[in-house]
Amino acid sequence: MSNQVKAEILSVGTELLLGQIANTNAKWLSARLAQMGVHMYYHGVVGDNEIRLREQFFQAKQRSDLVIVTGGLGPTDDDLTREVASEVIGASILEDEEALKRIQAVFAHRPMTPNNRKQARILQGSTILPNDVGLAPGFVLTKEGTTWIFLPGVPREMKAIMEQHGFDYIQSRFAISSTIYSKMLKFVGIGESQLEHDVHELIQKQTNPTIAPLASEGEVALRLTAKAFSEQEAKALISESERMIMQRVGSFCYGADGDTIEHKVFQLLQASGEQIAAAESLTGGQFMNQLISIPGASAICSGGIVCYTASVKEHVLNVPKLLIEQYGTVSEACAIELAVQVARKLHSSIGISFTGVAGPSELEGQSVGTVYIGIYHAGKQPYAKKFHFHGDREAVRQRSVKKGFELLYHYLK
Amino acid sequence: MSNQVKAEILSVGTELLLGQIANTNAKWLSARLAQMGVHMYYHGVVGDNEIRLREQFFQAKQRSDLVIVTGGLGPTDDDLTREVASEVIGASILEDEEALKRIQAVFAHRPMTPNNRKQARILQGSTILPNDVGLAPGFVLTKEGTTWIFLPGVPREMKAIMEQHGFDYIQSRFAISSTIYSKMLKFVGIGESQLEHDVHELIQKQTNPTIAPLASEGEVALRLTAKAFSEQEAKALISESERMIMQRVGSFCYGADGDTIEHKVFQLLQASGEQIAAAESLTGGQFMNQLISIPGASAICSGGIVCYTASVKEHVLNVPKLLIEQYGTVSEACAIELAVQVARKLHSSIGISFTGVAGPSELEGQSVGTVYIGIYHAGKQPYAKKFHFHGDREAVRQRSVKKGFELLYHYLK
Repeated sequence: MSNQVKAEILSVGTELLLGQIANTNAKWLSARLAQMGVHMYYHGVVGDNEIRLREQFFQAKQRSDLVIVTGGLGPTDDDLTREVASEVIGASILEDEEALKRIQAVFAHRPMTPNNRKQARILQGSTILPNDVGLAPGFVLTKEGTTWIFLPGVPREMKAIMEQHGFDYIQSRFAISSTIYSKMLKFVGIGESQLEHDVHELIQKQTNPTIAPLASEGEVALRLTAKAFSEQEAKALISESERMIMQRVGSFCYGADGDTIEHKVFQLLQASGEQIAAAESLTGGQFMNQLISIPGASAICSGGIVCYTASVKEHVLNVPKLLIEQYGTVSEACAIELAVQVARKLHSSIGISFTGVAGPSELEGQSVGTVYIGIYHAGKQPYAKKFHFHGDREAVRQRSVKKGFELLYHYLK
Repeated sequence: MSNQVKAEILSVGTELLLGQIANTNAKWLSARLAQMGVHMYYHGVVGDNEIRLREQFFQAKQRSDLVIVTGGLGPTDDDLTREVASEVIGASILEDEEALKRIQAVFAHRPMTPNNRKQARILQGSTILPNDVGLAPGFVLTKEGTTWIFLPGVPREMKAIMEQHGFDYIQSRFAISSTIYSKMLKFVGIGESQLEHDVHELIQKQTNPTIAPLASEGEVALRLTAKAFSEQEAKALISESERMIMQRVGSFCYGADGDTIEHKVFQLLQASGEQIAAAESLTGGQFMNQLISIPGASAICSGGIVCYTASVKEHVLNVPKLLIEQYGTVSEACAIELAVQVARKLHSSIGISFTGVAGPSELEGQSVGTVYIGIYHAGKQPYAKKFHFHGDREAVRQRSVKKGFELLYHYLK
């Protein structure tokens, strides 16, 4: 393992202290540095105030090997990071010729206000970390045993600088040889408590990798995090744990890391050569929207019909008036008919339908959260399932869509 | 004005330092406290580590009037906030009878593990801030001039405790008489730089309220923030600035604060008694989805058709094959036809259509980002407008939807 690198992040900006934005920079940097095996000990936020900034810089200098400072490098007068850092670290400020040239190039075809020149100023002895997407570059210097990395506060610029230059610099500066690798396993159709119960023994016993359950809207996941000398070794450790998890709950696992359930459904449809159409009442187009957000969706989905009112169900999707009168629109019969009709109308081999009560008021005597999802597949018996989702209007609509993808996933698999 | 209250937030939890979650608690608390006129000087994050926690508590004690601590009050062994705070503040820990009763009531029908009892433990001399949505209550105590508020780290519980008890406590404890009030004015159809240019003089001159421009996907806003002794006075200050802003850019302003452009369109449709239907190609149902997310949407939108492929445009929406062959689906002619047909098919007085190239590849020889939006209104000449949106597939789709609402807003107004 590497020598333990003690790190902290210091974010500068009054907008953070006023609660106008969350400190997503600290989150992003921390997640990436954790993967590298850097030990993050503190996050701090301070405003554009000279006295408090100085105090925080002094403290960081005393306690950390690596201090990452975000923000306060901009062109205006309240950007103080450079000046205060110069004083605390004991390095004078100079104008970097390369950085200035880059800034001047950006303003080649429009007037450059003098204050933009300020953004080419760095601390003497530092190495530039070029900013390929904005004006102010990052820079890094080591003095009295502390390595300081200064970065602009704009997340897009901060991330680009770190991705392209910063993380490599840290890796070589601290001769980091260990690595932390993590994998997220994703599940549908199993509740958080059931999942935890089924793998409880593994969670308790395992220390490398650690296994942590995570829950979000309608989905659960297990995060496996391994430490090792090499990525290969870490992956092998994870692989072994994954195997044991799969023995217990594998049938509910649909993917890992960046996978989404809609993307899985897209792939299954693609592989089977099927086309799907949707009839959406309470979900209002959200199911189709999520499918169509995937590039290449036209191969598996030609479209669908948003049938929010009974009239559209009847006149556009040909649901018999008698059926609606007898069973209502929020019914198994109506869900089945919608799924069949939308597939027929759009010449698709699969039809899915959503009809239910999103709220805030009940409908046709049915309570908020009652939802029917219908599925038709050419040549098979169409069917519908009834669900009851908790939460407000948005939650009920989102959970309906998620459940629709879950049903399709299990059906197509 | 009130005496200046110097505050800081200390968030406890290794998950923050590992970058697993962002510190949204600090953001939320800060925004609310700023409105009350509390001066936030620092945010700090520290892990579940006794030594560093003690060090942070000591520092906070020395420099702040109000310290809000979130996290570390849970049932497990790594929740150390209580123990370390007890030592630093000099207040012993005791079990609160009321809090214990509440916890026992939650476990009335299921076994309560002994560690849950820990969550009833508070510092001697503190006042309980009841937790109506979870187990661990918050508590507050003042010692040696510093007021400490301890809160659970789960955002939902933390917010509920503060909303119901915490902010009132702070207000009365510090006899806060000044107030900060802010209003967000929202604009469409004007770019950020143009908006800034048009109100530049006001932004420069004004100090109370301050005026800050903000930009997000396809929209711009101005945030007006006033300080005063009373809400009434603050509102009067804002009102005067708002009047001056409206003189310059009022025609682009569609609302304030929680208003959204889709909600404005909903209200305009409601007021005019019109019904809208949408034919969505590249936007895949997202326009309808946003309308239908508003309760009561059935009065103004009966549904629509997602016509992602040429075949659906032709066979479901009756766009003549010849038209598609001659002009393509990404054309003014097709957009107009789609708007007319969807309104007719769904018996609606207004039809809107979206057809274009979301990417990643070009289509029919047209570049990514080319989008036509068609509008039909019964008895009027239908028309379509061509746009070119920048960004990736998701950005193009989102901007198309936003632009559709913007066109409707200006049309209906």
